[in-house]
This record gives sequence, structure tokens and C-alpha cells, in this order.
Amino acid sequence: MAKPTPLSGFPELLPAQRFVEQQVVDTLRHTFELHGFAGIETRAVEPLDQLLRKGDTSKEVYLLRRLHEESAEGHAGLGLHFDLTVPFARYVLENAGKLEFPFRRYQVQKAWRGERPQEGRFREFTQADIDIVGRDELPFHHDVEVTRVMVDALTRLADPSSIGMPGFSLQVNNRKLIQGFYQGLGLTDTDEVMRVVDKLDKLPVETVKAMLVEESGLQPDTADRVLQLATIRATDDSFVKAVRDLGVEHELLDTGLDELAELVRSCADLVSDRVRVEADLSIARGLDYYTGTVFETRLDGYESLGSICSGGRYDALASDGRTTYPGVGISLGVSRVVVPLLARTGLTATRSVPSAVLVALADEESRPASQAVASALRARQIPCEVAPAPARFGKQIRFAERRGIPFVWFVQDEGHQVKDIRTGDQVDADPATWTPPAADLRPGITSTESKENQ
Amino acid sequence: MAKPTPLSGFPELLPAQRFVEQQVVDTLRHTFELHGFAGIETRAVEPLDQLLRKGDTSKEVYLLRRLHEESAEGHAGLGLHFDLTVPFARYVLENAGKLEFPFRRYQVQKAWRGERPQEGRFREFTQADIDIVGRDELPFHHDVEVTRVMVDALTRLADPSSIGMPGFSLQVNNRKLIQGFYQGLGLTDTDEVMRVVDKLDKLPVETVKAMLVEESGLQPDTADRVLQLATIRATDDSFVKAVRDLGVEHELLDTGLDELAELVRSCADLVSDRVRVEADLSIARGLDYYTGTVFETRLDGYESLGSICSGGRYDALASDGRTTYPGVGISLGVSRVVVPLLARTGLTATRSVPSAVLVALADEESRPASQAVASALRARQIPCEVAPAPARFGKQIRFAERRGIPFVWFVQDEGHQVKDIRTGDQVDADPATWTPPAADLRPGITSTESKENQ
Repeated sequence: MAKPTPLSGFPELLPAQRFVEQQVVDTLRHTFELHGFAGIETRAVEPLDQLLRKGDTSKEVYLLRRLHEESAEGHAGLGLHFDLTVPFARYVLENAGKLEFPFRRYQVQKAWRGERPQEGRFREFTQADIDIVGRDELPFHHDVEVTRVMVDALTRLADPSSIGMPGFSLQVNNRKLIQGFYQGLGLTDTDEVMRVVDKLDKLPVETVKAMLVEESGLQPDTADRVLQLATIRATDDSFVKAVRDLGVEHELLDTGLDELAELVRSCADLVSDRVRVEADLSIARGLDYYTGTVFETRLDGYESLGSICSGGRYDALASDGRTTYPGVGISLGVSRVVVPLLARTGLTATRSVPSAVLVALADEESRPASQAVASALRARQIPCEVAPAPARFGKQIRFAERRGIPFVWFVQDEGHQVKDIRTGDQVDADPATWTPPAADLRPGITSTESKENQ
Repeated sequence: MAKPTPLSGFPELLPAQRFVEQQVVDTLRHTFELHGFAGIETRAVEPLDQLLRKGDTSKEVYLLRRLHEESAEGHAGLGLHFDLTVPFARYVLENAGKLEFPFRRYQVQKAWRGERPQEGRFREFTQADIDIVGRDELPFHHDVEVTRVMVDALTRLADPSSIGMPGFSLQVNNRKLIQGFYQGLGLTDTDEVMRVVDKLDKLPVETVKAMLVEESGLQPDTADRVLQLATIRATDDSFVKAVRDLGVEHELLDTGLDELAELVRSCADLVSDRVRVEADLSIARGLDYYTGTVFETRLDGYESLGSICSGGRYDALASDGRTTYPGVGISLGVSRVVVPLLARTGLTATRSVPSAVLVALADEESRPASQAVASALRARQIPCEVAPAPARFGKQIRFAERRGIPFVWFVQDEGHQVKDIRTGDQVDADPATWTPPAADLRPGITSTESKENQ
């Protein structure tokens, strides 16, 4: 078999890189559990009719078919999920009688989309979602809660002593605010106006204004006020006055302003020079299913990735006709962040194996003695491995060096010794009591910003 | 939307059950890392030609197709992997220049097979694999190593203070032993004889003997000796004498006997009343690609599941024509064990949420005060949540009870108190110092053997 080549859009990591990704996932899981979120997984497949409810992604769905199946129509109409929200909504409906509401869950799983691969966008990718779902009602303070939980998680990832992810801005807006403002201006097809305004990040403001006037039929003065609203942003609740100054009145606008102001104020204690939570009135993502709060997140220096973490409030996440399940959630693109970060910064683990210690081997006959040392270390939670062959000790030390294993253990009749191969220090040691420094117990994370990107 | 129904063969777990599964995966990962195995993940898809190299599973492969793709031939000939060995062999070849050999890796991922669902057999399932792969050569002691690592992992799962999985027998055999024995008997088509002998677990011995004589053309006396070999089993190396007593001589038989005896002897220290490692000369799995050691594992009381953990030695796990990569590995069917265990024993978590504490809410205005308590607890790694609404305290306690949260925290002007709702004990507490008993910090695992299966 010839050497295989990578598949575009299906990223795979080397062991030391995978350690970084695993650390990201562990950090997320730890944070979500501290906040009381329960972990679940859903199956990778959903019936096609479920997957096509979000119309715009239908072309990206991967259908399944059994190899020797007669029909080309797909296996019982199943496709791979393209996000974790559609499966979660189905899971809630299917298990509603066995869940306690409000139900907080996190879910870290792969999803698949057949879109054109580019930096941060893959055909197979890992998402980390948190959602809170209620039965019939879900008070607004849960919007604040999911925001705070995700900011907590991202802040931990941005800790230089952990992953050292760049700083970020969580940008929030509120659909009630936009819709109320548009209705206060007398507009009726608010969705159409939002769709045009959403082009502001790609087209010049004059072009968007021309489209609002010529295509959407707005008066020039109305179009100006629509565009003025979209320029408002603030890291505190001063945006309320800026909106009020535009002179539009509507009950829904009042509610949206109150909610957004409360959200920004409630996150003020989480903000630092690297962590920003800001009202950005241009954010208008997927407004066809969101009904209140909406989120996007930009990573400093990685703006070209687009939003790495998005979500919002759905007043009807799921419904079986009798009962409605409102939800609010936010989804982090784990692959979208990790893969570019690895490529651009050379982020990697300090070693390619979990082992903190290589137990050297004097000769093949003494393998049981070396294994006994390894067992004694493992009994005290110290990861280690025994050298594969009784090569010269210099060669065994180089074996450890190539993998980044910091310590080599020598089993000798006259007593055991352990060498820190970074410093050359070699000391007497007892496998029943010796412990490496805490920082050496697990691989660390290191980055060579100057490393060549691939 | 009507209430969705489960998809046969695609098991999903409730939050408290998922906690059990997560605990199983965490235990496996911890054990594998203690032994120096690095975690990797491979993409879910492989080119079809890769997937069809193991011929017998071709009919179970799920092909992918984009929804609006013209051709029904599948998306660039991609299918979902049906195990983790085929992707791992490909990963080794693709990354050989960047890996250090011998390369130890573990991999815990989902796989998919379109087979008929039954207890312990699913269309989507989680596997946990460990393999050691060498370049050009891989000494036999690595066969011993993977056996010991998996026995260590399964022993931890069988610990009543952890998952409390039933006891198990790891059954080992050696293809060189069987093949050498057959060749020593003068047989040439040894694969054909193995295929017939493999039917011993389904057909009476007389029927198998008749097949060996009538279909495979063996002399009755030769057939008897072939069948006698398959009845030999032992928990120590006494099987060597039993085989020798059959009076067959062959160099390959000698090698096989030496290897199997060494394996059984090397695992003797791991054996207990619940953990058995035994030579079983009837084991003959997938012998077309295994070249030495082979493993199967039976779970006590769950024999109907078949082997829960299988593998062996491949002298050519992968090859690019110039270099050959021999490997030895073993694969645990996580779903095959966990799903039946949950269903039959009612194994579940002591609570459905990670929270150890519910911080009660006196009124909506005091939410910030309750949140401050929660933040103080989380800063000391205590998972908690704030009550969703300022209901009567009795109702808030029942909210905690329904989720299994053991402690309720009351924020009061005159000082904080925390109640253990299992005992009713209520004491003064300071959020900066109070810590729950270690056993209450995370959900525990409990089992109601008598609980009704679903």
C-alpha cells in the first residue's frame, strides 16, 4: 500500500497535538461540570427530515447508505448531524419524561458538513455546546448564566498557564431589540431588512444603504437609522442611551434593551484586558430561529476565522405540539480554534507520550525488575514505560529525549537511581516513595510562535 | 413535531447513565496513560478501498453521500470506519516519519456497522483500542505488555468501588501454536481446518468431526487430535504438557507454545478470583490476519455477549512496500459492555447533575448573593448550581432531591448554612472554606440489580 495522503477537511493530529486538543476538551468539561451542566452524547445520525428543518444547511448534509443496499436513497433516510443543536432538541423531546427541567447539558462531539474546507472550517469538526432548556418557560437569567459559563470556559483556555489561547470578545445582541426598533420605524418585513443589514461585514455601508432603499423599499432616512443602529457597540450599558437617541419607540425594543443591558452589566465582573463582553448591535446571526439574545465571539488576531463561539435564545428549541421547550445555548467550535492555533503558533505538548519516567533496562533478564519499578510508580499515579530493549544506557537516554520523557530510572543491584535528563542530575531513589515535581507528572503545553506554519 | 422514537442500534443514554459511561472511558484513559500510551483520534471516514481490505465486513460499511450530489456512488468513495484498527494502520503509514517507534497509542472513538442490532451489538458503538506498533520488528514482550495493560484496565472497571463490572476471563491462544500443530500433523490447508474448528462454539463436537473428515478430508485419527487440541485450556503453563502429550512435533508449534506459556506466566500476578487469564486453545478469531497471540474476553454472567475485548498480533499491521510495521493490540467494546450492564443491573449515577450543592434563592433580588456563593465554591472546585427560582425552601429542597444533589446552601443575612438533605443536618458554613466530603464531590455510581430493565 502506498503512503496515504491526508483528506482535505478531515484534520488529524499527531499525539503531542492531540494532547493539546484533549486538554482543551478537559478544561471545557471541567468548567461546564463546575456549573452543574450534565454531559450527554447523542448518536451521530438523525433522520433526514430532522436535519432538513434548518433549511440553509441541507446541501451540506452527508447521507448514509449501506454498501450493498439496493436503493440509492440512503439508509432509512439517515444523515450525519451537522451540529449538536438539532440532535439535542430531538433528545429533549424523546426523553422529556425522564429529564428534570430546567435541564442543563453540555455535549462535546464531532459533527460533519460537506462544505468547502478552509482555515477553521472542516468537513469533520468537534463542537462543544452548552444549553439550558426549560419546560414551557425559561427565565431570562439563564441567558446570563450560559454567557457567564462560556466566558468562564474561554477565560480558562486563554490562561497562559493552560492553553494560552488569545484574548477574545464575546459580542452580544438581542433580536427583540432589533425587531422592536424596526417595527418602531414602521417596517413590516423585518427579516428581510436584517438579512440585508447582515451584509455589513462584507459590503460597504453605501452599498447596503442602496440595497435597503432600492430592494427593500425603505425611505433613505429610515435606512440611515437602520444602519445607525448597527454601528452601535459598547462594553457597558451606555448603548441604551445611544439607541434611545435615535428616537425610535416600541415595546419590544424596550424589552430587548432591558435584556441586553442586564446581560452586559451581569458580565462586567468577568471582563479583563483579554476578555471582553460587549453589546454589538450589528450581530444578526441566524435570526430566523433565535428569538432574543444572540452571541458571536471573535478571537484576537484570528478574526479571519469568523465567530468561534455562537448561539442564542430559542423560545421554541423543541415542541411536541402540547409542550414547548424554550432554550438558550452557545456552541464553541473546538476544531475551529484548536487546528488554526496549532498550525499558526506551533502549540504542542512538551512530550509525545504520557510517560514521566522511562525505566531503563540493564539486560533482557532484568525486565521483570524494571517492570516491578514501573508497577510501583503506576500504583502512585506516575505514568511510565519500560525501555523496549536493553541498549546502551546512552541510547536509552536518547530514546527518552526524543519523546520528551524527563526522567530515566536505573535499576541497579546497589540501589536505584533516577536521572533528570534535562539537567543531568542523578539521585538515589526508591520506587515506593520517589515522586516527580508536579509540573512533570503530565505533559505540559508549549508554543513556538515562530515555528513555520504548515 | 411528534415525539421521536429511538433508532434501533443507535443507543443513547440518559445523563446519569452517560456519567457511568464517561467514568468507564476516564478509567480506561487513566490506565492507558499510566502505561505510557498516547491518545490519538482518527477521522470517522476512510476511503472505501481501505475499508474493504478486511473483506468480511464489507457488507456492513456505511457509505457517505452528499445530499445534492449527482452521483449515487458515494462522496469521493468515503465510508464510516467499522473499527479503529484500519484507521490506525493508515494513520501509522501516513505519519510514520513523525512518530517514534515502538509507538504505543490508545484510541477511544465511535465506529459504525450496518449489522442487525441485538444485545451488545449496535450500529453505532464506542471502542477503546490499545496497540503497540514497531518499525520492521516488534519483540514478543510487547504481546505481554498489551495483555497486562488491558487486564489492568478491566480489573479497575471490575473494582466494586468503581464501576463494579463483573469478573472476566481473558482467553489467549497463539496462531503459531495451532498452525504448527496442524502442520506437524501433515495438514496443508490449515486455514480451512481452523475455520471448521471455529464452529465448535456453535455445533456439537461430533458434527465438527464429521465436517473435518468428510469436507476437509482429514483422517478420523487426525481429526481427533485436531479436536483434542481445541479442548485444552489452563490457567497456568500446564497446557504445554497437555499439547506435548498429543505427540505432535513442529518448530512453529514449539515457538507458539513458548510464547503462549510466557504470556500466561507473565500475567500470573494479575489473576484473582474475578480476574482470570487463561490459555484456551479453542480461540481462533480472525486468523486470516493475526499471526501470533490472539485474545478474546468473556464477562462472567454475560457470556451471551460473546467476546467483549479481542485482538492479537499482526506481523504486518501496515506496510508501504519498503517498511513493514508489525503490531499487537486489543480492543474493548465499550458500548458492548456498558449498554447491557446499564440495562440489566440498573447501574446509574447517584445524581443526574454534577452539582454537589444547590445554592438556594431567597428572592430574585438576592440572586447576585447566591451567585457569589456559587462562584466561591467553584473557585475551590466544588460543582454547584443556583436554584432557578425563589420558590419556598421546601420546594427548593425537593428540586435538589429529584436531581440527587446532596447539599442545599442557604444564604442568610445572619450567616450562611448548609443542609445535608439526606440526613437533615444543617450547619453554619463559610463559602470560602466549607468542603463537602470527598465522596460527595462528584456523583457516585450505584446499582439496583433488581431494577426493571427497559
